[in-house]
Amino acid sequence: MGSAVITRADECGLALGRLASIVEQVAECQIEGRECLMVTSGAVAFGKQKLTQELLMSLSMRETLSPKDHTRDEAGTLLEPRAAAAVGQSGLMSLYDAMFAQYGVKLAQILVTTADFRNEETRRNLFSTLTELISLNVVPIINTNDAVTPPPKDDDDPLGGNKRVIRIKDNDSLAARLAAEVQADLLILMSDVDGIYTCPPSQEGARLIRTFAPDMSSHVEFGGIKSKVGTGGMDSKVEAATWALNHGVSVVICNGMQDNAIKTILDGRKIGTFFTEVKSSHLPIETLAENAREGGRRLFHLSPEERAGAINLLADLLISKQSTILEANSADIAEANRRGTEKPLVDRLSLTPSKLKSLSSGLRQIAETSHSNLGRVLKKTKIADSLELRQITVPIGVLLVIFESRPDCLPQVAALAMSSANGLLLKGGKEASYSNKALMNLVSEALDSVGAGNAINLISTREEISELLAMERHIDLIIPRGSNELVRSIQEQSQNIPVLGHAEGVCHVYVDRQADLTKALRIVRDSKCDYPAACNAMETLLLHEDLVKNGSFFLDVCNMLRREGVIVHAGPNLSKLLTFGPTPAKSMKTEYGTLECAIESVPDVEGAIEHILQNGSGHTDVIITEDETTAKSFLSQVDSACVFHNASSRFADGYRFGLGAEVGISTARIHARGPVGVEGLMTTKWVLVGNGHVASDFAEGGPCQYIHQNIPV
Amino acid sequence: MGSAVITRADECGLALGRLASIVEQVAECQIEGRECLMVTSGAVAFGKQKLTQELLMSLSMRETLSPKDHTRDEAGTLLEPRAAAAVGQSGLMSLYDAMFAQYGVKLAQILVTTADFRNEETRRNLFSTLTELISLNVVPIINTNDAVTPPPKDDDDPLGGNKRVIRIKDNDSLAARLAAEVQADLLILMSDVDGIYTCPPSQEGARLIRTFAPDMSSHVEFGGIKSKVGTGGMDSKVEAATWALNHGVSVVICNGMQDNAIKTILDGRKIGTFFTEVKSSHLPIETLAENAREGGRRLFHLSPEERAGAINLLADLLISKQSTILEANSADIAEANRRGTEKPLVDRLSLTPSKLKSLSSGLRQIAETSHSNLGRVLKKTKIADSLELRQITVPIGVLLVIFESRPDCLPQVAALAMSSANGLLLKGGKEASYSNKALMNLVSEALDSVGAGNAINLISTREEISELLAMERHIDLIIPRGSNELVRSIQEQSQNIPVLGHAEGVCHVYVDRQADLTKALRIVRDSKCDYPAACNAMETLLLHEDLVKNGSFFLDVCNMLRREGVIVHAGPNLSKLLTFGPTPAKSMKTEYGTLECAIESVPDVEGAIEHILQNGSGHTDVIITEDETTAKSFLSQVDSACVFHNASSRFADGYRFGLGAEVGISTARIHARGPVGVEGLMTTKWVLVGNGHVASDFAEGGPCQYIHQNIPV
Repeated sequence: MGSAVITRADECGLALGRLASIVEQVAECQIEGRECLMVTSGAVAFGKQKLTQELLMSLSMRETLSPKDHTRDEAGTLLEPRAAAAVGQSGLMSLYDAMFAQYGVKLAQILVTTADFRNEETRRNLFSTLTELISLNVVPIINTNDAVTPPPKDDDDPLGGNKRVIRIKDNDSLAARLAAEVQADLLILMSDVDGIYTCPPSQEGARLIRTFAPDMSSHVEFGGIKSKVGTGGMDSKVEAATWALNHGVSVVICNGMQDNAIKTILDGRKIGTFFTEVKSSHLPIETLAENAREGGRRLFHLSPEERAGAINLLADLLISKQSTILEANSADIAEANRRGTEKPLVDRLSLTPSKLKSLSSGLRQIAETSHSNLGRVLKKTKIADSLELRQITVPIGVLLVIFESRPDCLPQVAALAMSSANGLLLKGGKEASYSNKALMNLVSEALDSVGAGNAINLISTREEISELLAMERHIDLIIPRGSNELVRSIQEQSQNIPVLGHAEGVCHVYVDRQADLTKALRIVRDSKCDYPAACNAMETLLLHEDLVKNGSFFLDVCNMLRREGVIVHAGPNLSKLLTFGPTPAKSMKTEYGTLECAIESVPDVEGAIEHILQNGSGHTDVIITEDETTAKSFLSQVDSACVFHNASSRFADGYRFGLGAEVGISTARIHARGPVGVEGLMTTKWVLVGNGHVASDFAEGGPCQYIHQNIPV
Repeated sequence: MGSAVITRADECGLALGRLASIVEQVAECQIEGRECLMVTSGAVAFGKQKLTQELLMSLSMRETLSPKDHTRDEAGTLLEPRAAAAVGQSGLMSLYDAMFAQYGVKLAQILVTTADFRNEETRRNLFSTLTELISLNVVPIINTNDAVTPPPKDDDDPLGGNKRVIRIKDNDSLAARLAAEVQADLLILMSDVDGIYTCPPSQEGARLIRTFAPDMSSHVEFGGIKSKVGTGGMDSKVEAATWALNHGVSVVICNGMQDNAIKTILDGRKIGTFFTEVKSSHLPIETLAENAREGGRRLFHLSPEERAGAINLLADLLISKQSTILEANSADIAEANRRGTEKPLVDRLSLTPSKLKSLSSGLRQIAETSHSNLGRVLKKTKIADSLELRQITVPIGVLLVIFESRPDCLPQVAALAMSSANGLLLKGGKEASYSNKALMNLVSEALDSVGAGNAINLISTREEISELLAMERHIDLIIPRGSNELVRSIQEQSQNIPVLGHAEGVCHVYVDRQADLTKALRIVRDSKCDYPAACNAMETLLLHEDLVKNGSFFLDVCNMLRREGVIVHAGPNLSKLLTFGPTPAKSMKTEYGTLECAIESVPDVEGAIEHILQNGSGHTDVIITEDETTAKSFLSQVDSACVFHNASSRFADGYRFGLGAEVGISTARIHARGPVGVEGLMTTKWVLVGNGHVASDFAEGGPCQYIHQNIPV
């Protein structure tokens, strides 16, 4: 069987709408030429208990109101579960029939019992019937034959479920057996929870397991995740799934309530829990995060000298273990070349002895500054006699740094975390996996030297970013380092963990009428051409109208840009002023990131400010003028993280600002803003030391009074 | 007709699952005794075009594969739209029938034409048939009789839709007419978008209008929001809805794709767009937010003296306009008493001359401190010759403060915003609406005096908080001031706007073996009993094991707590130590907020730290000991916003810390942490002043070098 899909819809339960949605997806799969089977369990389908009760209830209501309606009277008396199942079965089949008919898809009902699988002949018959039906483009709907199946014995039902219904557990194993029988490619078991969790989903900290290997069973608590529908807990699903996996069938356990679950799975996107044979060799991500927090605390309780020592050891290792690093790196590069990766990307990926040398010396600088990072007193207040308050710097907790390509990012970020005593989870790109592993080994060695081995962990490339972004209990701050797309996607996805960074850098340079035009030309050139891919490169040049209308500056700047190979676009105002001008800019909010920029004309500094407020991204904006008043007005009114007067936008950089290593550039309006040094990885804590002070003594008319005297620090 | 619901399901389109979900909800409404009609449009139902095409496609596929199947051959030849509609009609009705049968609900099919409404006799017949059916508990399914309805003329179809299908616009008006005819309570028009937007939903800044008054039409762009199903755009829905409204029927336009849309609406919760006769007298919320940003900027460009002057004027007005304020306040109190509000809540609500006096003097203090808030230089670095960098304080932007009960919060928060030059949106509770309005008038008067009238806006109580939380482009920081529930709910709901605050205050006091027991008794009493409802009150008392086993301290503390009326629970360790002890605590993470607390025994200070790390909320934790080393270890390892030694937890308060007015207490790990003063309403900005400096001059081998010399500020 080529691409069989087996679904059981019975537990997606209770909602007619959800059942219909599954029918729709199965029908569409069938129309697209996939071979499908559905397993459902007779009257249990979309919730035997609830539906039967509802049916009875609504019937009795209806009987009172319209007594002539006897069409379903017999159902009203049916309380014996197998009989109810048999009756439900026919109503269900006619519903399936009407639904599938909407798609022109035909059904066949197959009722089976456990005995049918034990007898070799019935088993063979069943298999050939199924094969025949599938080849005729008929969707077999397979149920347990509840009318002839013996009820489960009491001691047979360890979950202690409702005795009135057949054990749903049977259905999971039925689906697994059928899947193995027809050698299905995929078995989809639908439940009313999203998949297998690390502990009951209602419990704090429960996390969905995306990929489940049978050897993980011991890490997982199954208790309490029982389906509302009946007796089927998750244990029976895991058991059935494991069984199917052992018989060569891949399995997904997912939530049937989720929109388009089947199609999403068939499209290869991850939902639910995917069962695979691959052994899990790595620790669960929560454990890594808890270890990182624990390790971060250990770092914090070291002396600054010990932290600096570990960083310096890492700096040493980058040199002494150079050959190991470069060897691993060349494996990544070979792989990249094999994939036909473009040269600039390969360049970013590649490490060289000189890169390692400068990386090593950068790390020594971080070690140097780490002596005074933590426990720094920012504020000291004498609140009352013998009652003193201090505000001191402390680590944030656990950081998640997500980075692409550049493996040199790893030791740098690791050193920053060590310096600030934060726990750190590192998630690097697949393209640098060998290099990252080699570098991580050195980081671990450095950490081990001070007994904080697990403060920093490299997360397997297999872990999904979306999973990490949901771990708000474990991660305090996310720092994405990479393309704008990476940053934007993480900012959008993270709901409850703050993200430090900026998605866009639409930086402006405004040349005022009072500008020194020689300075202006140099600054414009540097801002655009020094490194056009940088976020602090100029994207829009704003010119005072007079500079466009009179004199040669406009031509000079255009010629200079042309010489540098910069493609120029005109903003709407500029276009109006020129008879023949550059092509119009598509938007004034574009970050080109290449040798390309927009030029716009503005009437005055107020116009420039207004343009920037409307179109800027709050990153870095520059004014070039010799008029102090104009400059002041610009610097004060432009509301960006960095505002510059007569200096290139390229100075917006942690290193150039003298912040030591740069964590990133933030355009957020709280916490660190602009280029962020290691202080962006710290928070504060209030420490109050008294001598038995109580607040009630300070109440109105009480014996004590507040002094609130600031003490210089 | 009592509680009629009219739905049209046809456009919720394309998905069988969604149609089924609507059937399910209608059936349940019917079973619950609501009178329902459904309007659907024959073959258009769940997407005429797509379904017909799909039917044909799947049939032809099927014919090739199983040529004996002729049961649906006739459908395969039907391309004429009205005929297709007629055929689709019967398939659709049998599907509806099978679906409704699952709930024991009976249907009747009614086909109507526009002419039926024009003729008085047919109209009367129709009405009596509908009434009769409804009284028999039958759900009428009403369609346009496509087989006899003339096709729309070309000039009849301004939207230029597909001519092969009947204009879906007719269906909107059909539903509206029927609703008016049977005097329905509610008409639900289902679409595939969430409701009416301020501009096309794909456009940046589009916002769903929750409540639509006909006079708002001019503020709204309808273009581009066409349903995918056919020609029905939103204009026709708005037209039909307005018509129904004019005929006394309330209307909701909602997304049929949304789970349980009908039930949610009938439960009175707001989804989609609700049409009401109430005239909209207030500005759209975006406009208020833009005004606030603009006004905040104006505040920022005032001199500190002017800002202080406006705050002082507000302080004056609180006294001079006292009678107006108290009059408004007594209206709120009368209302609260009428509703039987509990006394403590009424107390919070009520303003008195003495409250206003102390409020006024608090404002004067804020005015005092506002002289040095903004533009403060935090850092100054000489980067190179004539290149100087400053990091200065600036306002955050636009704040949203959501507060409950206490109207005194309004002038206080307003003064803080004025002092820090932030724009402010205030959302107060309904219970204080008269007081808030009166106070807001004074705030506006004060702002007007400096030309920044719209920097602060009071948002109508009608606006939903969820709407505000989605306005990330307009709001930079949210500060909830009220119950833990309020804060928690806002923290959970806000996805992209940071929230300053704390949901929980599970504060601990640890009494060490080396404690001065007299101090300990006083501090425990003050921490728990001074004001048990405060977030900084003690919830768990941790005792060194020795204090439980030996000596009289344990009994002393229990007796003291009993005298104060505190109910005590025992943690698991304490329970083990005692033969007869207090009732076991349900959880060690409980914030009681009343005269109630838990006591737990810990082996030593490390055990106390571990307990706090596991169970605390990171708010405030206290150690009582005379041993400096033990104290240091606690203060350093407990990772809470406030850690105290020998002082009551009640000191964790902005006023007591000497921060001036308190914005709130934050347990977040970035931005402000612990009690937050006005500095929590500010961010920073980097100002770089050069003299034509370009970065390329500083590159390796370039003519310039970085100095990076910190200049004391």
